[in-house]
Amino acid sequence: MGNETNGFTLWFTGLSGAGKSTIAEIVGPELERRGILVDHLDGDVVRTNLSKGLGFSREDRDANILRIGFVAKLLTRHGAGVIVAAISPYAETRDAVREMIGDRFVEVFVATSLDECARRDVKGLYAKAFSGEIKEFTGVSDPYEAPEHAEIVVETEGRSPEQSAQHVITQLEQLGFIAREKEEAVA
Amino acid sequence: MGNETNGFTLWFTGLSGAGKSTIAEIVGPELERRGILVDHLDGDVVRTNLSKGLGFSREDRDANILRIGFVAKLLTRHGAGVIVAAISPYAETRDAVREMIGDRFVEVFVATSLDECARRDVKGLYAKAFSGEIKEFTGVSDPYEAPEHAEIVVETEGRSPEQSAQHVITQLEQLGFIAREKEEAVA
Repeated sequence: MGNETNGFTLWFTGLSGAGKSTIAEIVGPELERRGILVDHLDGDVVRTNLSKGLGFSREDRDANILRIGFVAKLLTRHGAGVIVAAISPYAETRDAVREMIGDRFVEVFVATSLDECARRDVKGLYAKAFSGEIKEFTGVSDPYEAPEHAEIVVETEGRSPEQSAQHVITQLEQLGFIAREKEEAVA
Repeated sequence: MGNETNGFTLWFTGLSGAGKSTIAEIVGPELERRGILVDHLDGDVVRTNLSKGLGFSREDRDANILRIGFVAKLLTRHGAGVIVAAISPYAETRDAVREMIGDRFVEVFVATSLDECARRDVKGLYAKAFSGEIKEFTGVSDPYEAPEHAEIVVETEGRSPEQSAQHVITQLEQLGFIAREKEEAVA
């Protein structure tokens, strides 16, 4: 697909509570400000429109990820800036999406540690996972296979979400997916 | 969406065997020849990538149609020529898709009669539906609600698929979705 499009898919992966959606929601408007037509494929949008009925078995998780990947591929071909925020715990499945989208796929590993995610526990899910009330919880009772060759790695600890988002934007500039903005406007 | 895109969704509806996919597969390349980037959302593509696991209950049929509609909407916004060929038997569900896509939605009713579809019976499905071997078969044991206000109506009886496809193209020109081609090239 590489030569026929300026589109790309920004694929945020990481543990529950790592900050994927929070960072993605800051990156999206910044891309739009730069003239890119952005699609967010995550959270409620995906659950309501693509994946209703799927659960948390490996098979269902994979179906969900491949379905998002399929739609991201179609949109990328039309020049979209697609933003996906999904735990996407399995390396093999993420690599299948990478294969579909080719060199317009940008894997963003939000590398917040399990300890830090559990400490923040924004939604109270880790407490329930550790107590066994929630089964099949990624990082606790279900695997998370961290990316080894992500295009962008975001270390969130000690950084604000805005700083993390800025890091993603800067990396996108350096990788050539978006144009560099001049430091100063030229008259 | 109207003003921000030249994209559109061509939604072929009609009975099984009416000729939806056959006509769509001729229309697609003609649109591409005219410089439109086309996405086909039908048949195996949808079954494999979006709707695996769905059956033929009203609920599952609706979920399938709404899911295709969701993806068509996203692509249309990016200027795609989206081609959908789906029985889509329920008027209410097609109207929900129309609502999502707005004035870039083009309903194409492939109006082949039940008698004619059953006579052709290309895939042998009608024989099985009439014998009861296949349950929930649209037009036989399940309803088909014909569109009353389709943008384009295709009468296939007595017409070749090529003629039907040409009718769709001509109507798209007249409705302003694609540019008219000159009768003769101008030097």
